[in-house]
Amino acid sequence: MAVLGIDIGGTKACFAVFTADGELLKRETILVQGGRGDEIGDRIIVKVKEILTGEHQIRAIGACVPGIYRKESGTVWAPNIPGWEDFPLLRKLQEAAPGVPVAVDSDRACYILGEVWKGKARNHRHAIFLAVGTGIGAGILVDGNILRGANDIAGAIGWMALDRPFESKYTGCGCFEHNASGEGIAKICKEMLEADPGYEGALRSIPTERLRSSDVFESYEAGDPLAILVFDKCIEYWGMATANLVSLFNPSIIIYGGGVFGPAGRFLDRIRGEALKWAQPISMGKVSLEISALGGDAGVYGAAHLAIQNLKTSYNA
Amino acid sequence: MAVLGIDIGGTKACFAVFTADGELLKRETILVQGGRGDEIGDRIIVKVKEILTGEHQIRAIGACVPGIYRKESGTVWAPNIPGWEDFPLLRKLQEAAPGVPVAVDSDRACYILGEVWKGKARNHRHAIFLAVGTGIGAGILVDGNILRGANDIAGAIGWMALDRPFESKYTGCGCFEHNASGEGIAKICKEMLEADPGYEGALRSIPTERLRSSDVFESYEAGDPLAILVFDKCIEYWGMATANLVSLFNPSIIIYGGGVFGPAGRFLDRIRGEALKWAQPISMGKVSLEISALGGDAGVYGAAHLAIQNLKTSYNA
Repeated sequence: MAVLGIDIGGTKACFAVFTADGELLKRETILVQGGRGDEIGDRIIVKVKEILTGEHQIRAIGACVPGIYRKESGTVWAPNIPGWEDFPLLRKLQEAAPGVPVAVDSDRACYILGEVWKGKARNHRHAIFLAVGTGIGAGILVDGNILRGANDIAGAIGWMALDRPFESKYTGCGCFEHNASGEGIAKICKEMLEADPGYEGALRSIPTERLRSSDVFESYEAGDPLAILVFDKCIEYWGMATANLVSLFNPSIIIYGGGVFGPAGRFLDRIRGEALKWAQPISMGKVSLEISALGGDAGVYGAAHLAIQNLKTSYNA
Repeated sequence: MAVLGIDIGGTKACFAVFTADGELLKRETILVQGGRGDEIGDRIIVKVKEILTGEHQIRAIGACVPGIYRKESGTVWAPNIPGWEDFPLLRKLQEAAPGVPVAVDSDRACYILGEVWKGKARNHRHAIFLAVGTGIGAGILVDGNILRGANDIAGAIGWMALDRPFESKYTGCGCFEHNASGEGIAKICKEMLEADPGYEGALRSIPTERLRSSDVFESYEAGDPLAILVFDKCIEYWGMATANLVSLFNPSIIIYGGGVFGPAGRFLDRIRGEALKWAQPISMGKVSLEISALGGDAGVYGAAHLAIQNLKTSYNA
């Protein structure tokens, strides 16, 4: 048997066919950017139908979406896909694949499911995936189950309050995300450039509207003092967030992923050092901190694992 | 049928007999303070045996302990009971009550169970009890189940990092607890007294080693400016912690209890206002914030509810 995992992002959607054991049989990517609403849904459905009539017999489908999945209605809110405020993805996929069980969940939920299936969280029942990309979210596994919350929006860790007092710049993204996401790295760098007119390094030469976190990482590699200060601050935030996850959830593992981890993986020991200062000491002594081994594939692996879990539930029901 | 709930504290232990519907039939209190280890255990056992041979037929026993309950070993770590580093409470109670199912859990777990049974969290499956007393802890209900974590120490919210940078005074208690627990209120007041030699109010006349949070509440009532500043700071911390619970867990209700809520209940609207600034806005719009209706009885109600839950599980097993 084979399962189809779909990782839908704001730019592209990745389709991967796996065996039940997680062997990758086939993968394809289509563009999502540029369309809106139903049109994007249709592009995804065309590809799903194509795969369903292809060489592998697909027994289950799982999809990972960049936003909130409302489990009761089967609809998706995805801020980076125009027109997906309440998109009925579950129904669309079910109509495209009659008789094939379909499951959908948020990207952060899928990331931790992917790690449980084929990554660093194997055999863990209390595990957290801290996804630091453009934004920040957390996929949280509590006793083997995804933490959903009362309205499917648990894990919104980008909103974590980590520094007093409140500043109006946190409105719309949250304190942690403002200071330590991919966009946050660029924002903090701009704030520091403004505050330090004497700095004459490479980051000064980039027009501020074009400054990206990748520029800050590049300058850091070259030993740029301002880039070093930016990451000193980020590491403090990542460490505090780690500590708070440890103290609240007492997980056995936290996995760092998303586009920023990636290059920020080099800071893991310093993040651990910062977290050690703040966290409940017994919990901190028992948690493993790891960089994702699946990288950009955590979502598609998670979607496939979701499909398999759902298939099992469907049979038992 | 009747069940026995036992709420063991560092000072006293409360024994309450309830009907299965939660009607209180009888309650008694014994002193715990002054003893240590087995001796305290023995005092509790004597009372349990006495109740078992009394007028009500006890079908199940639940106990609430002030610390960590290690579910696998059935032992208790209670920092305020001398000699209870790894006390085999489950076994002792089982031996005292042959044939009667016994369950034990931490105070914070029991507080939220008590609220679910007979307090403000009835019909909630995603609920949090924020217990602010001498220390701070949280009892967290995720989809109807207590969040335990990998080592039974989830909910250690007193360690939450809420203000950069780290200060050495947080070692041993955590940032949130240092700033906003019962002891924290006294600590912050002392720090402010030291920092403001010009202050001549009532709090100055109390020898610092005897200053308690109750003194600060009393001065606040009288309009003392330093007491107002202390609580301004506490409200900020309580609001930030509330926001972080909302963003991470997306609960439908948060209940404030413990000795400090109590008198700090008057600040609930200001805590909500502070949390509103920081939290994930959709989750924040959906959560109820309430002061515990059970007050000091949350633990004993929770212990009784734990007993009933365990009785049901025992029959199903």
